[in-house]
Amino acid sequence: MTKKVYIVGAGPGDVAYLTVKAYRLLASAEVLIYDALVDSELLDCVPADCLKLDVGKRGGKPSTPQVEINNLLVKHCLEGKQVVRLKSGDPFIFGRCIYEIEALKAAGCEFEVIPGISSALAAPLLAGIPLTDTVLSRCFAVLTAHEPEVLDWEALSRLETLVILMGGKNLAEIVYQLLRYGLLHSTPIAIIRWAGTPSQEVWTGELGNILAQTADLSLSPAVIVIGEVVRLREFL
Amino acid sequence: MTKKVYIVGAGPGDVAYLTVKAYRLLASAEVLIYDALVDSELLDCVPADCLKLDVGKRGGKPSTPQVEINNLLVKHCLEGKQVVRLKSGDPFIFGRCIYEIEALKAAGCEFEVIPGISSALAAPLLAGIPLTDTVLSRCFAVLTAHEPEVLDWEALSRLETLVILMGGKNLAEIVYQLLRYGLLHSTPIAIIRWAGTPSQEVWTGELGNILAQTADLSLSPAVIVIGEVVRLREFL
Repeated sequence: MTKKVYIVGAGPGDVAYLTVKAYRLLASAEVLIYDALVDSELLDCVPADCLKLDVGKRGGKPSTPQVEINNLLVKHCLEGKQVVRLKSGDPFIFGRCIYEIEALKAAGCEFEVIPGISSALAAPLLAGIPLTDTVLSRCFAVLTAHEPEVLDWEALSRLETLVILMGGKNLAEIVYQLLRYGLLHSTPIAIIRWAGTPSQEVWTGELGNILAQTADLSLSPAVIVIGEVVRLREFL
Repeated sequence: MTKKVYIVGAGPGDVAYLTVKAYRLLASAEVLIYDALVDSELLDCVPADCLKLDVGKRGGKPSTPQVEINNLLVKHCLEGKQVVRLKSGDPFIFGRCIYEIEALKAAGCEFEVIPGISSALAAPLLAGIPLTDTVLSRCFAVLTAHEPEVLDWEALSRLETLVILMGGKNLAEIVYQLLRYGLLHSTPIAIIRWAGTPSQEVWTGELGNILAQTADLSLSPAVIVIGEVVRLREFL
């Protein structure tokens, strides 16, 4: 392997859900630059003398500014180190890699992006919910609800299945928008927290009662699934 | 590990994109039941004395009827064998597992579903196309175009990014529907064939010219990406 920066998807958490390629890259990493959501168990996959740099937001502390992360990547790459930039899930699914890639390109650093299992797909599966079904779900959409006002809720309300990442804080707004555009109060919804980790928890309900059900809970990090496929969980 | 039926996602093809868990399960499989799209290289991951059963469609031959696949799974499980049911991509993304799971449950067989990297997400990544972007794509939808008539093309045309599996044969219908609902002829489109394998090929164009560009090609198996994110490929 030539030395370059590997932007690697860590998957939903557990080492078992790393790809073989990611596992091998971690085992040969000289510098590891990782985000907060990356499971701490994954840090044991790198050699003992690997430099481990946490650039994530943790315990209320602000995250490292993007430009500093970019500089770290470039610096260690130019020093000839095997750098792994580990991101939870899949790097190209809400991973905000583009700034890092632009910086690497500008500095003439070689890089490669390695796919990981996105929690958008794995969280429903690990909660027993198939996102597709030949009858109930011929289509699903994946979105974040960071900025609910930029989304076309009318179009989204017409799709059979929605998967919403980082939606815990905006659950009330999500429910409001979908009911407003005609979804029934009885539409099934599932909230999956810490998917793929020993702390995984799942709540299921309906658009009409999920807010009351989860009022006192911290719903982060959570994946929300909305649609009839949620009911298949009882049969699988 | 107790003996049960593992329904395992093989990912897009290359062994490197298997999960660590899938790799270990294959290494201990006594019976492997696999689909046509599974890369032949993956068959080398099982022990030499593992019984390998191909139940996929290949070279014009019809695939094994679902009820026969169900019976095979149940039979080998009840004989106390460690059974791996290997499916390309992710088992819960258009994997039609529900019939097999129903059969296993009815027979009292234990089972576990192991997520895999879906080509819906990996094919765009491996072609250099991020499906999300903070500006261009806050949402993407995943669909198949097996039965284009059951889809709500008006709603789909309003989403920023579409990922279409098994759409090669219906490309003309896809283009027609999206133009009909107002997408511009200049909307970028990419077609990725054999993603994640040494035969991977990518075509990019616009809705207005992709049919002419690909008229003489066999576009199967292909993942189609439609939306402005396709243009990011030139920058990444």
